[in-house]
Amino acid sequence: MSSILITGAGGYVGQELAAELLRTSSPDTTVTITDVQAPPVPPSVASGDAASRLKTVAADLTSPQAVDELINESAPYETVFLLHGIMSSGSEANFDLGIKVNLDSTRYILDRLKATMPGVKVVFTSSLAVYGPTKPGFVISESNLPPVPLSSYGSQKLIIEILLNDYSRRGFLDGRAVRLPTVTVRAGKPTQAASSFVSDIIREPFHGKKAILPVAKDTPVWICSPYTIVKNILHARDVPKEAFGDSRSVNLPGLLITVQEMLDALEQIGGPEKRALVEEKYDADVDRIVQSWSPLFDSARARELGFADDIPLIENIKRFAGSLA
Amino acid sequence: MSSILITGAGGYVGQELAAELLRTSSPDTTVTITDVQAPPVPPSVASGDAASRLKTVAADLTSPQAVDELINESAPYETVFLLHGIMSSGSEANFDLGIKVNLDSTRYILDRLKATMPGVKVVFTSSLAVYGPTKPGFVISESNLPPVPLSSYGSQKLIIEILLNDYSRRGFLDGRAVRLPTVTVRAGKPTQAASSFVSDIIREPFHGKKAILPVAKDTPVWICSPYTIVKNILHARDVPKEAFGDSRSVNLPGLLITVQEMLDALEQIGGPEKRALVEEKYDADVDRIVQSWSPLFDSARARELGFADDIPLIENIKRFAGSLA
Repeated sequence: MSSILITGAGGYVGQELAAELLRTSSPDTTVTITDVQAPPVPPSVASGDAASRLKTVAADLTSPQAVDELINESAPYETVFLLHGIMSSGSEANFDLGIKVNLDSTRYILDRLKATMPGVKVVFTSSLAVYGPTKPGFVISESNLPPVPLSSYGSQKLIIEILLNDYSRRGFLDGRAVRLPTVTVRAGKPTQAASSFVSDIIREPFHGKKAILPVAKDTPVWICSPYTIVKNILHARDVPKEAFGDSRSVNLPGLLITVQEMLDALEQIGGPEKRALVEEKYDADVDRIVQSWSPLFDSARARELGFADDIPLIENIKRFAGSLA
Repeated sequence: MSSILITGAGGYVGQELAAELLRTSSPDTTVTITDVQAPPVPPSVASGDAASRLKTVAADLTSPQAVDELINESAPYETVFLLHGIMSSGSEANFDLGIKVNLDSTRYILDRLKATMPGVKVVFTSSLAVYGPTKPGFVISESNLPPVPLSSYGSQKLIIEILLNDYSRRGFLDGRAVRLPTVTVRAGKPTQAASSFVSDIIREPFHGKKAILPVAKDTPVWICSPYTIVKNILHARDVPKEAFGDSRSVNLPGLLITVQEMLDALEQIGGPEKRALVEEKYDADVDRIVQSWSPLFDSARARELGFADDIPLIENIKRFAGSLA
């Protein structure tokens, strides 16, 4: 019998992660998925056995009482995946909401886990937005550049990483923080992430809808497919804790591409009609946030810890298109 | 009319800073000094005019009510110096107390300042304990090494730096974080800092008392005299905010010396009787924390921002000895 919790499980990555956990874990594993509104059963979860091992809970994690109900000593989790959060543009637009959700609720959860199930494994999805801009050509690794976030989102993610690291060092929890590249192609709807367009420009045209490109076409982005992201979030759980050394934070592998390459791949797979649905409309606010992210990363540490490299862009978009069929 | 607040002002650095502020500021400047117990009037503050501009307040800053009384819109400060905190060994021994004082109370103060006197200048004394150990010979700068603290103290200091940086970026406050080397010679009593011995082995013998050396004599330390520290904390206030760039954090200049060099200087100035008062008694807990600090720093950024280099060790100890006469 083992039990797993996923927060922010109404989001695209959370849904995919839940489905994958049900698909790959032992038949006595139950998965609790929670979000502000009760997350749906992921479409790929077959009814019957798998669905019966899934528990869906609506919980406002900014409420200590809601957290206390979800997390208590009578039903310890084996692993907790912390995926909830207000995304980058959202946290920049509403500071109070961002800090309440991204920092305070997450910290309260860490303290509650420490108190009720000490030593529990915690996988936290952080972001490469912990880094600010770099000198042109500089390739970031976990050990050569101090994270100086230029967004409240990145600041809040980084603070949780530091807490998770200290809690892990002291043995309160067994934390692992994975810094996600921009995930594309996300299914669902445009999000409040400044990087939302990186999925929108593929997803919306495949649904026959227009998408806005708010940045220049030669903008480089560091992306990862959802398939690889889910694989790597799961892998984060399985790395022996000793392997991390002094820091539990890892920059996940990604692919360096330009927006133009994405548009080309869209046209190659979807045809010129789909490509024509992407409208260029510059947005200075979005561009400022996107420009503050570096697209150049060295994934040596992640590879050493056994994380997977991403699949090629064309393969990624083909899989997305195939999932719609 | 201008008004200044210093927290943690019962501590040695706070006392020296208050005295220096009274000595150097305009005659209409008032200085409020606060600590858990009402801080004394610094010995070097002459009675009369200077003393009349000093306000001493006992306040438990972990109490929001106490902070609200100290900080309110009816009496805005021009600059707030945040020096209070539980030191390194103390925060390691009592996690809950450390996080309450070093993180929660300081964050509450930042929020209260943001609400009542937005844009106020805040000088925060952080620590080089934000860094963990480095490869032998590696010279740390603000831009070449991610801080990975190996103590709860360092973690909490780093978190406040990140908040201060984000608050400054957003214009909530005008923050400056100075990471202090080990301050020596501190007057007063041994403290709960793991680095306490770096002052104890000089101060105690000059008072005719025994001191314990808990680490090996060839241990390198990165120190700074209190004279230079006070000068640089004051300077942090005067740097134009634009000069900081994306990060408000600065590693203050220091001197690289070994414990042996300190003992030699003690003997040179105080004679062999004073040197004989230092007893070597290894303490693994202290040594583990001290070994986790790197003693090699590049002070280029601090110098560029106009911070001062330290005086020579012999000069430092002479001044300390002279202050006792």
